[in-house]
Amino acid sequence: MMKVIILLLLFIFPYSIVRAEDGSKLWLRYVSVSKDVAHNRSISIHSKDPIILLAKQELVNFWGKQSIELAVDRKLTYLKDGFKITGNLNRIKVIAHEPVGLLYAAYHLLQLQATNQPVSNLNIEEIPSFDIRILNHWDNLDRTVERGYAGYSLWKWDELPGVISPRYEEYARANASIGINAVVINNVNASPQILSSQYVIKLKSLADIFRRYGIKVYLSVNFSSPKILGGTKDSDPLNPEVILWWKNKVKEIYQVIPDFGGFLVKANSEGQPGPQDYGRTHADGANMLADALKAYHGVIMWRAFVYNPSSEDRAKQAYQEFVPLDGAFRDNVIIQIKNGPIDFQPREPFNPLFGALQKSNEMVEFQITQEYLGFANHLAYLAPLFKETLDSDTYADGKGSTVAKLTDGTLRPARKTAIAAVANIGEDINWTGHHFGQANWFAFGRLAWNHELSSEQIAEEWISMTFSTDNKFIDPVKKMMMGSRETVVNYMMPLGLHHIFAFDHHYGPEPWGDQEGGRPDWMPWYYHHADTVGLGFDRTSNGSNAISQYRPPIQEVFGDIQLCPDQYLLWFHHVPWSYTMKSGRSMWDELCYKYDAGVQQVRAMQQVWDRLEGQVDQQRFVEVQSKLKIQSRDAVWWKDACLLYFQTFSKKPIPYDIERPVHELEDLKKIKLMIKHHN
Amino acid sequence: MMKVIILLLLFIFPYSIVRAEDGSKLWLRYVSVSKDVAHNRSISIHSKDPIILLAKQELVNFWGKQSIELAVDRKLTYLKDGFKITGNLNRIKVIAHEPVGLLYAAYHLLQLQATNQPVSNLNIEEIPSFDIRILNHWDNLDRTVERGYAGYSLWKWDELPGVISPRYEEYARANASIGINAVVINNVNASPQILSSQYVIKLKSLADIFRRYGIKVYLSVNFSSPKILGGTKDSDPLNPEVILWWKNKVKEIYQVIPDFGGFLVKANSEGQPGPQDYGRTHADGANMLADALKAYHGVIMWRAFVYNPSSEDRAKQAYQEFVPLDGAFRDNVIIQIKNGPIDFQPREPFNPLFGALQKSNEMVEFQITQEYLGFANHLAYLAPLFKETLDSDTYADGKGSTVAKLTDGTLRPARKTAIAAVANIGEDINWTGHHFGQANWFAFGRLAWNHELSSEQIAEEWISMTFSTDNKFIDPVKKMMMGSRETVVNYMMPLGLHHIFAFDHHYGPEPWGDQEGGRPDWMPWYYHHADTVGLGFDRTSNGSNAISQYRPPIQEVFGDIQLCPDQYLLWFHHVPWSYTMKSGRSMWDELCYKYDAGVQQVRAMQQVWDRLEGQVDQQRFVEVQSKLKIQSRDAVWWKDACLLYFQTFSKKPIPYDIERPVHELEDLKKIKLMIKHHN
Repeated sequence: MMKVIILLLLFIFPYSIVRAEDGSKLWLRYVSVSKDVAHNRSISIHSKDPIILLAKQELVNFWGKQSIELAVDRKLTYLKDGFKITGNLNRIKVIAHEPVGLLYAAYHLLQLQATNQPVSNLNIEEIPSFDIRILNHWDNLDRTVERGYAGYSLWKWDELPGVISPRYEEYARANASIGINAVVINNVNASPQILSSQYVIKLKSLADIFRRYGIKVYLSVNFSSPKILGGTKDSDPLNPEVILWWKNKVKEIYQVIPDFGGFLVKANSEGQPGPQDYGRTHADGANMLADALKAYHGVIMWRAFVYNPSSEDRAKQAYQEFVPLDGAFRDNVIIQIKNGPIDFQPREPFNPLFGALQKSNEMVEFQITQEYLGFANHLAYLAPLFKETLDSDTYADGKGSTVAKLTDGTLRPARKTAIAAVANIGEDINWTGHHFGQANWFAFGRLAWNHELSSEQIAEEWISMTFSTDNKFIDPVKKMMMGSRETVVNYMMPLGLHHIFAFDHHYGPEPWGDQEGGRPDWMPWYYHHADTVGLGFDRTSNGSNAISQYRPPIQEVFGDIQLCPDQYLLWFHHVPWSYTMKSGRSMWDELCYKYDAGVQQVRAMQQVWDRLEGQVDQQRFVEVQSKLKIQSRDAVWWKDACLLYFQTFSKKPIPYDIERPVHELEDLKKIKLMIKHHN
Repeated sequence: MMKVIILLLLFIFPYSIVRAEDGSKLWLRYVSVSKDVAHNRSISIHSKDPIILLAKQELVNFWGKQSIELAVDRKLTYLKDGFKITGNLNRIKVIAHEPVGLLYAAYHLLQLQATNQPVSNLNIEEIPSFDIRILNHWDNLDRTVERGYAGYSLWKWDELPGVISPRYEEYARANASIGINAVVINNVNASPQILSSQYVIKLKSLADIFRRYGIKVYLSVNFSSPKILGGTKDSDPLNPEVILWWKNKVKEIYQVIPDFGGFLVKANSEGQPGPQDYGRTHADGANMLADALKAYHGVIMWRAFVYNPSSEDRAKQAYQEFVPLDGAFRDNVIIQIKNGPIDFQPREPFNPLFGALQKSNEMVEFQITQEYLGFANHLAYLAPLFKETLDSDTYADGKGSTVAKLTDGTLRPARKTAIAAVANIGEDINWTGHHFGQANWFAFGRLAWNHELSSEQIAEEWISMTFSTDNKFIDPVKKMMMGSRETVVNYMMPLGLHHIFAFDHHYGPEPWGDQEGGRPDWMPWYYHHADTVGLGFDRTSNGSNAISQYRPPIQEVFGDIQLCPDQYLLWFHHVPWSYTMKSGRSMWDELCYKYDAGVQQVRAMQQVWDRLEGQVDQQRFVEVQSKLKIQSRDAVWWKDACLLYFQTFSKKPIPYDIERPVHELEDLKKIKLMIKHHN
């Protein structure tokens, strides 16, 4: 009778069979094992190491298959912080070189279980691609988050160290589950206050939690900290008083946090102070800090994101600034380089600095938070973007010199390799604002662990852990995710267009953007160069000659309008409106079709998602559905704004088989969004 | 050399070959003939009649073909105010029974010329379908226009009679050119002030202008005028004091305006005063006024648009009120009946009052102004709507008893036949707000002249006179116009849905609309009856039994859910969501496809129009393009609002091959437009 009632209920409320979820569990929706199951299998290791105990506990709680034996073997240095898993139907053996390797192995096993992979015959060896897999939080001490779209900062500085939010540990666990082992806790536009003794104590409370998950804390530091905080005359890196202040500060930190990771520095960039304020070089500044950290095995990540409002192409400036300094940096300095030469656009060619520094450590900085990709409103799966950079062949050390191989130690052995990304995490219940934003956090972790994973595989892992293991759900969602970044490129800035966003906040289109007396290199016209002749930034030898920073044969390919891939065409060339593209269409027509394709593709995403109603809990279904509606409206906004604006130069009709604009250019120009630090 | 330059200019500015126009000329874009042409042909008639002189002058100015001989033949009474045109390549002969017939003939010839029709072998006889072809202006004395969307009223009462705007004559000429011969100058919700001596003098100045174009002026009168204006105790139609007041007022008017047409009365309707205020009937009220007008051959048009907030279906009330009075009305009273039983919806079945009054004169009232069709923002060519009513077979006098034949004297001989429509005219430079609104003014005039004209033919006449005689322009625009009304029905209220507009102003969707304590018959839920079972108003014998007011076999067709045409289904039936439609789809799915079709159809209209850039002057091109953008956005708004709202009852998914909603229902519910009399 009870069965009949339940069946009846299922019939009446087909959608309620999937329980509501708020996304707070991320991809960690493990199911606790029953007592029976737990009784029939053992998780064995003898250790008092907190990380090992945690690894064991996770398996005790959630592993529902055969018995597992864990072991640390200090001889297996080649494993780094990776692991080996072998086993059959009855027993699994896990070996790691470090305790945290066992924790990673535990999460690996739980992932296999959660994604319904076979575990009866295992022979796995995993060694991470990069030593330091680090998230950069652009969180301010007032809990606003620069370029954050998931609510206020997780870090409740006012409450620390007294009150410990349970989310600190949840956050650490999520990171550990995908191999992230380092965190820069504060904004690169850093407040000196973070180095005050009061904040160091607060930081310790976070470090203590993170440590159990194998995560080290790092700080962004303000180069003027000695003067502002310590009262030194200046912050000149060659001033002994300044050197001493940093030395003492580092010592103070390490006394409290013995495994502190090091500093991230944005210096002489966008108004931040730096060594150039005193006539010193980036190397002078970085080395001074590196020396202070050296004894503690601390690391300096020194950002190459520098540009000045000069007549020189912004895209060239980081290269020009850093290449002359090659060889001058200490070995515990890593130059942290944004994936592209401008600033986290939906698409950029790889940054020519990769491989250009022969004798300096280099690392990639990605942006997970979608500053230039529709904030937390647009679904854009970024693994393909990350992979595009990592797999780019720079030819720096000959063919095959991909960005990944240049930075992971393969081609350029380094004391420590690293990869960074700017986090998209805030205190929203679902962490990232958009449920699919979680996938980008996940994807960065997975690629930092193994950059050879395919975007598809990572998507499949994430979907099946986050939503459903049913292929009828996984397949369409994976397809939707795989196309999503290209979709955003299409409706925002196809064919190599870049930086035509609304001023400052970067939400929505503003190709007409201009600010009286504003920096040219912050203005869209600086980047698109639309005129009656055509569109795009001439970076060939006839123009800014940015292509000279690339090596042959890349230089020849990018520099030749006939060879240059469509996706970078307007990045490197000022192309006539009537120029015949590879498709046979004129450039103007091609541009129109790209924008329109973007709109149609978002609508197709809506259809994919709506078809899945009932296959995912209703709360997350509706929340994603709602975001897709915004994205769909925004795509039309972008298309209309860009085509109607560029049409004032091209003077050509939008091809008539394309859906017509529904907005007036003049109306769109009036849109002024009041967006500050976060939404 | 000059030719080369001109060709060069044409090449450089292809769009500028069509000179900008502002639409102020309407369809009267005649080209003045050269002196040479005028010299070689004569326009002959000997008369001092001002109308005849005007007819001659129009031909002298604009007729560029053979000579024309005009004549009035008072014996040809069968022609009424029509005309005969015969002629060959050398000479045309025009004969009319009345002077105005020559004017109509002149405009007919000019239309033939303007639309490139052959005029070498003519044998034309035109006799108008209706005697009185009248526009109703809902213009208030403060120059706001109720349901007006083309700016303030044309009538500048403050300036009259001293200052005469040139637009008064332009307006009269436009009307005459399409055969309109009567005008109600003021709002049916009438101010008593219009009957003050001061305003009668002002009115005279308009009448004097209109007279030359064969147009008589009429007034809407407030039934309480005697009490308010004349100081009588009441306005009881049987009160001798009241009767005398009206008699004197009518006399006063006719002394000033000898050809005054008569009164239009909205009585005991939507708060207006009327005979029922004194326990009298509509017949008592109408007859009292008819008696006052009788001696002057004046006419009373008495509106049947009456309904009360009772428990009775609003759709039935006019019929119930008037049928018992049949036979009680004087022969100079015409009952003016809205085309449908509710209120000028995008689609209604014909009003069952047509033919139901056996011994009373009946006339149709259409609404040209788009109160319920997107104001002056939406392109909706209304000839098909007008024809749909006129061609509706009521079966009142057996098969073939169309509304047209019941009201044009064919089946029910009348002293005077009439047809009315509420104007869409204001002081906007293009008269009607939307350039295509002009087509509806034109179409009403043409159908009032000859209701057997096809919508296509009228569209073709209008397009070729208003825009271009090029078939490459005419054909797509005609096709667009022909589908446009059905398109609006699709995205606003398909399948017989009605009156789910936003409260009061009626712009945009508000199917959820409700006002605490408001009249139920002003609330959308009163009309759509959405519930978990289905949608629609049950007007069968199981419901309000409104179908009983229709004659067999219409009654059987409308009353049977299987037989009822889809377009009236939800008007007459409460249909289950899963009911299988003729298409094989469920009612819910069919509803979804209809709304989506509406959206796609507006987008297709945009494409049609955009393809015509350069074939029409740029000003009108851009203005129409801009309106189509609004319509396109509004269509999506309508679709999302209605589907998302009705979905809360149907609990069914929107078919997944349909473009998904881009709005949130809750957001749409928050939209409150501040729209008063006009925009």
